[in-house]
Amino acid sequence: MQESEHKLPKGFIITTAEAAIKAPGRRDIVVISSTTPASAAGVFTRNVVKAAPVLLDMERLRDGCAQAVVINSGNANACTDRQGFANAVEMSAMVADALHIAVDNCLVASTGVIGVQLPMERIKPALYESLANPVNRTLLDAASAIMTTDTFPKAVSRDIELASCTATVSAIAKGAGMIAPDMATLLCFVITDLNIDHTALQLALTEAVDKTFNRITVDADTSTNDTVLVLANGQAGNERVVAHGYGFHSFRTVLQEMLMELAVMCVKDGEGATKFVTIKVVGANSDTDANKLARTVANSLLVKTAICGGDANWGRIMAAIGYSGVTFNPNCVDVYFDDVLVVKDGYGVNNDSLAYEVFKKNDIVITINMNTGQGAAKIFTCDLTEDYVKINAHYRS
Amino acid sequence: MQESEHKLPKGFIITTAEAAIKAPGRRDIVVISSTTPASAAGVFTRNVVKAAPVLLDMERLRDGCAQAVVINSGNANACTDRQGFANAVEMSAMVADALHIAVDNCLVASTGVIGVQLPMERIKPALYESLANPVNRTLLDAASAIMTTDTFPKAVSRDIELASCTATVSAIAKGAGMIAPDMATLLCFVITDLNIDHTALQLALTEAVDKTFNRITVDADTSTNDTVLVLANGQAGNERVVAHGYGFHSFRTVLQEMLMELAVMCVKDGEGATKFVTIKVVGANSDTDANKLARTVANSLLVKTAICGGDANWGRIMAAIGYSGVTFNPNCVDVYFDDVLVVKDGYGVNNDSLAYEVFKKNDIVITINMNTGQGAAKIFTCDLTEDYVKINAHYRS
Repeated sequence: MQESEHKLPKGFIITTAEAAIKAPGRRDIVVISSTTPASAAGVFTRNVVKAAPVLLDMERLRDGCAQAVVINSGNANACTDRQGFANAVEMSAMVADALHIAVDNCLVASTGVIGVQLPMERIKPALYESLANPVNRTLLDAASAIMTTDTFPKAVSRDIELASCTATVSAIAKGAGMIAPDMATLLCFVITDLNIDHTALQLALTEAVDKTFNRITVDADTSTNDTVLVLANGQAGNERVVAHGYGFHSFRTVLQEMLMELAVMCVKDGEGATKFVTIKVVGANSDTDANKLARTVANSLLVKTAICGGDANWGRIMAAIGYSGVTFNPNCVDVYFDDVLVVKDGYGVNNDSLAYEVFKKNDIVITINMNTGQGAAKIFTCDLTEDYVKINAHYRS
Repeated sequence: MQESEHKLPKGFIITTAEAAIKAPGRRDIVVISSTTPASAAGVFTRNVVKAAPVLLDMERLRDGCAQAVVINSGNANACTDRQGFANAVEMSAMVADALHIAVDNCLVASTGVIGVQLPMERIKPALYESLANPVNRTLLDAASAIMTTDTFPKAVSRDIELASCTATVSAIAKGAGMIAPDMATLLCFVITDLNIDHTALQLALTEAVDKTFNRITVDADTSTNDTVLVLANGQAGNERVVAHGYGFHSFRTVLQEMLMELAVMCVKDGEGATKFVTIKVVGANSDTDANKLARTVANSLLVKTAICGGDANWGRIMAAIGYSGVTFNPNCVDVYFDDVLVVKDGYGVNNDSLAYEVFKKNDIVITINMNTGQGAAKIFTCDLTEDYVKINAHYRS
């Protein structure tokens, strides 16, 4: 399971195009394709309002097979009616035509502003040109092309050593705002040359998303476009991995590690964020309770602004768990900022100067011990800054 | 039911003290008392973590009787253990002693920072002095003394014409941050010389709070100190009002109007707020669904920052209702900004320039018609600005 710097798995090709979807001057379309059909799996937003490409992919993934995905940034193609759906189909058809693959095996993903039609008059010639005269791009190029308010590209690669061969897994993600737990929360594409059954692939992906992307929150807003896709083309040549069979555990572990790495990158790149914060709840009556408590703290504007200001204001944490909807005895609660005890049995312990030192750091762990059970949960979040407001007040201007 | 400018009902006296609780130079304690015992009712925070004065008042209100309330700003006396409770008791005892009233009839309320003990060494002499040499203050003085991050005092008065006499109802409130629906959400004190049974008083108050303070949200953070109290000393001389008897309906209506006026003032004074926004959901399958949809939109950071930036970004509203937890068909949804239709059957209708005109205003109504039922709800909120972050990042410094 050694790390390899942004490697492309065997048989995968990346091309990009420049279509000036939001603004000119950057590559805003990427096509990731495999030379052979691949096992495929996906996890999508649970938002009732789903973007056209999400609806299309859900349909096309039913057979557990795909060969390419075309992704654009700058426009979400959400709330765009039949025209939006037709545009998503057309983008996939262009890719299918050019690469000589079945159109049903071509997936689509979009990210950007909601409610505006894709500028097909610019997308079509740009995509046509790049597919007709393909230039091989790197994983990092792909990661850059899918960025919106992200400030850095997010990519990661790993090797898996199997008895017969080595397989490579690579992944890219984008996400900086509209990031809430309980959903896929962003765009993420995983490609691997591992030979794996699509049921096993879906199982590993669903588990990994639940433990990674579903544990982060920037603003508690859940997007209409969240999509995580995995394509596995089998070109590593290993014996086919099936659920819980040989190789499955290694793949599952690697996938989870990689998605966690990307999830953490997304929080660190949270719009306007200056601090990375882990909210850890232990000793709750159940994991469900722990999760609810941790999320409420992670989403409290008052907690997030206090962290932004370096104010070790544990009172806001007590207030947040108090309105989380979980029933508990406040007199049992301990709170730590890193290793500094700040609340014992529900009351302050006057460790203010030590607590303020912790809050000067860029990476803070807030541990809340409910002291009544075995339930535990971890949520990763960031602070709320004036820059978050700036970025989102003027996103379309 | 005519309005009277900040009148004091018969038999009520207001005094203030300057105790430098958070900082010197302002009156930060107010005592509101009646010359005779009064029927009393209260609504308190549903936060599991309740401040000492909240716990004390809940106990002392059981008999439906009170005669005075002492309120301090600058310190919430929350998460302050036995010492905090003892301090609340001591403040009430000083008032009871000085005014020669039963200590059980003296209530306490606090607002400000959580987790710090009250500076009793400053509060005691200041309170003692002001009670020993009382100076009669106005309703507006009281409203000013309970302010924290509020930028203006909030007070309102009304007369109720009854067959035999006229009764006066006056109320003050404070609240600018840590304001979430589903709770009393702030401090509010209502005094009246109406003669009314305490059961009727509690009934009218609970209903009024549900329809007013429970319908506003600034930051979805629910305080540990939310308290709404009503004292009715009966000195207007009317025949005792009982639940649903003569005069009850008039009082209930007036109380609801007054609390709504104060609730709107609190949202308009929302920390950093520049716009007042009404989120109106109609045509939902139930009032509960409508409420959930309206609250999710009202609390969405992306919607609130778009409003701040004057960006008529209806896509964020569609995304917010989509993750509200309510099941619905996106293709039935219409959205209006004031009277401008921006979404028809779930899709944009290209009224952007008209929509942007609406978003330039300081008072905006967003109407979301689900078009499937009779459920309706209204929530009042404000935009999220860089100033909100500034105010809350450095609240304690």
